[in-house]
Amino acid sequence: MVLVNEHYLKLAAGYLFPEIARRVAEYETSEPAAADRIIRCGIGDVTEPIVPAVVEAMHAAIDDLADRDTFRGYPPPTGYDFLRNSIAEHDYRARGIRIDDDEVFVSDGSKGDCGSLLEILGGGNRVAVSDPVYPVYVDTNVMAGNTKEALEEGGYDGLVTMEAREENGFVPKPPAEPVDLVYLCFPNNPTGSTIDHAGLREWVRWALEHEALVVYDAAYVNFIRDPELPRSIFEIEGADRCAIETRSFSKNGGFTGVRCGYTVVPKKLEGRTRDGRRVPLHGLWNRRWCTRSNGVSWPVQRGAHALYSPEGIEQTSMLIDHYMTNAAMLRGGCESMGLRVFGGTDAPYVWVRCPEGVDSWAMFDRLLRKAQIVTTPGAGFGRCGEGYFRISAFNSRANVEEVVNRMRAMV
Amino acid sequence: MVLVNEHYLKLAAGYLFPEIARRVAEYETSEPAAADRIIRCGIGDVTEPIVPAVVEAMHAAIDDLADRDTFRGYPPPTGYDFLRNSIAEHDYRARGIRIDDDEVFVSDGSKGDCGSLLEILGGGNRVAVSDPVYPVYVDTNVMAGNTKEALEEGGYDGLVTMEAREENGFVPKPPAEPVDLVYLCFPNNPTGSTIDHAGLREWVRWALEHEALVVYDAAYVNFIRDPELPRSIFEIEGADRCAIETRSFSKNGGFTGVRCGYTVVPKKLEGRTRDGRRVPLHGLWNRRWCTRSNGVSWPVQRGAHALYSPEGIEQTSMLIDHYMTNAAMLRGGCESMGLRVFGGTDAPYVWVRCPEGVDSWAMFDRLLRKAQIVTTPGAGFGRCGEGYFRISAFNSRANVEEVVNRMRAMV
Repeated sequence: MVLVNEHYLKLAAGYLFPEIARRVAEYETSEPAAADRIIRCGIGDVTEPIVPAVVEAMHAAIDDLADRDTFRGYPPPTGYDFLRNSIAEHDYRARGIRIDDDEVFVSDGSKGDCGSLLEILGGGNRVAVSDPVYPVYVDTNVMAGNTKEALEEGGYDGLVTMEAREENGFVPKPPAEPVDLVYLCFPNNPTGSTIDHAGLREWVRWALEHEALVVYDAAYVNFIRDPELPRSIFEIEGADRCAIETRSFSKNGGFTGVRCGYTVVPKKLEGRTRDGRRVPLHGLWNRRWCTRSNGVSWPVQRGAHALYSPEGIEQTSMLIDHYMTNAAMLRGGCESMGLRVFGGTDAPYVWVRCPEGVDSWAMFDRLLRKAQIVTTPGAGFGRCGEGYFRISAFNSRANVEEVVNRMRAMV
Repeated sequence: MVLVNEHYLKLAAGYLFPEIARRVAEYETSEPAAADRIIRCGIGDVTEPIVPAVVEAMHAAIDDLADRDTFRGYPPPTGYDFLRNSIAEHDYRARGIRIDDDEVFVSDGSKGDCGSLLEILGGGNRVAVSDPVYPVYVDTNVMAGNTKEALEEGGYDGLVTMEAREENGFVPKPPAEPVDLVYLCFPNNPTGSTIDHAGLREWVRWALEHEALVVYDAAYVNFIRDPELPRSIFEIEGADRCAIETRSFSKNGGFTGVRCGYTVVPKKLEGRTRDGRRVPLHGLWNRRWCTRSNGVSWPVQRGAHALYSPEGIEQTSMLIDHYMTNAAMLRGGCESMGLRVFGGTDAPYVWVRCPEGVDSWAMFDRLLRKAQIVTTPGAGFGRCGEGYFRISAFNSRANVEEVVNRMRAMV
């Protein structure tokens, strides 16, 4: 009988979002009159439509497919040249970062890339993640066999965790113990924290010194407002020898339902075999895509390409303005409740400290029952998230205004 | 330094299609006057536009995304219910096969699914593939560590191969040695062979007796004309305890550039842990999708759904008629050359025996140089493919007519 991947059996049941759903459903049942008033600020899904430039490009792409003369069959597995070029040009070279077109790999989203990267890496790598953390980094490593069993207190044995707390501005320091692979996410999900050049330089220096690979998740980069903050780890000298960067059009382009992202794997980047031979990761990643995928849908790639047109850039910036105004309003709402607020200035997530003596889930219940606002309890992202909650700026303006009004009324 | 997946280093360089491209380019250089006459019948990519029902549905889906009230964000990771239901209803239950909606998992294509399936299986499974074979089954198993090194004569040490030859109608028999995982593809790529109920029953009986898992690739099922032939392995009693079936909209819907397919994993299907505990594969596959993916693009899923509308069904059947008429014409063309022809009656591939004493690559060169027709040498699909070539029916009618005329002129 076929053997299963037993690492899957170590996975703790998905707890956070099912538990949120359970508590919301329970409340709706017990208070049917209040059910209609519920506003969901928990999940990080966008609410605003895709922009006109993308709409137009996608319609045109479908017409291409409808005509024999312009029909497109199998796409290149790693993305069309026009899209790889636009990405490399606008997101990197225009900022003085040397990234070649063929170092950009187009995918159907950043979440997929995070997991797929582990396919080209071997078993036995020591892995570090932050706490609180985006759970996908953890779960994909469990599934790949890079951890031992789940711990009773949360997390997994064998996984190095790096604490992100108020004291370090929610920017963890490099781990003291040896690590082969480390995940960084800035602007951060869930804390909304950012990293500056000095902080990122420290990480790159550490990674080069310890020969660690950094997976830099920059999914929220377009929400950075501060001109001084780095947009890419590749702004740091030497990062092309220690880092992979993954990005997504989900949030800046409103592409959560369209599905497109990309990952940059520099040609200089190397891993090693057990007997010490150095192997460029770029070739492995290319082979992974050519064997495992037939690439991303033609209309999707045309839509992503339109994000880089002058109209696309302008329209997208309005979309980001919308969410960042939401974030500012939500910060204000939480502050009016006397709460300590983090994030939300260069990130679409606001990270809020619960009142003294109130834990994450108690605060979740209070906001749900008193104001019918659904948030995400920080404890769901890891032990260091206890005592905080996350509120997402991905919402309509009307909902955000109402949330802020209710918060003020709670005082 | 991070360890790489060393199994990738066993992969023999992709040889077949690069070598075809090299020979075609060389010919174009040496005979520039003939270059314009080249007709490509090598690759299995479709040429005809997507059908009007799909075009309409995809345009409407993009308009959904362009409007806040109808906007769709993250899709369910395993596919929208409307599409899973249409698939289960039309492709299975309408044929008397009991498949639940939630046993259908929507993906961005069958090639991806073939590789992803190995993620939920453990290392150490003994794997059998046919010869000739669709190379993706082999390469993904190499990458997953299920083989030893590449063999000089082709193939990989540790992989069981099952011969598909004229003598067995290109339908291999179950292997004599113990095997945990076996790949079957009917209608077959590259031979165009099909399997009947008796043949499939033999396979299912063998799989149940030996507790082997069958991955049944039915990507070309819509090209079956013979009403007596099985459309799904799940037509066979007991297959829901030993088989996974994967299908694609690439060929019947012209979706090679749109990207959508699906895999059916029955809830009864089990694998085991090393210490012998039984584990349902359905839950593992579901977890794989929820953790590794954010699902398939909204317009793509709407487009796939439209294939099941009355208009979609009718239009698709015309598309299939087009390619199957091509196949019949290509069979006739090859027969007019006095060649022995297989496939092409219930499959879009025609598999042709080379003249006595002419090997696959010599025949490839002869067709290229004498008639400017690009085919695929059978030897590229495995040792048993030597002495044959594949000609694809995925082409325009004008090209196929010209190919047939040139074949007749070669006599």
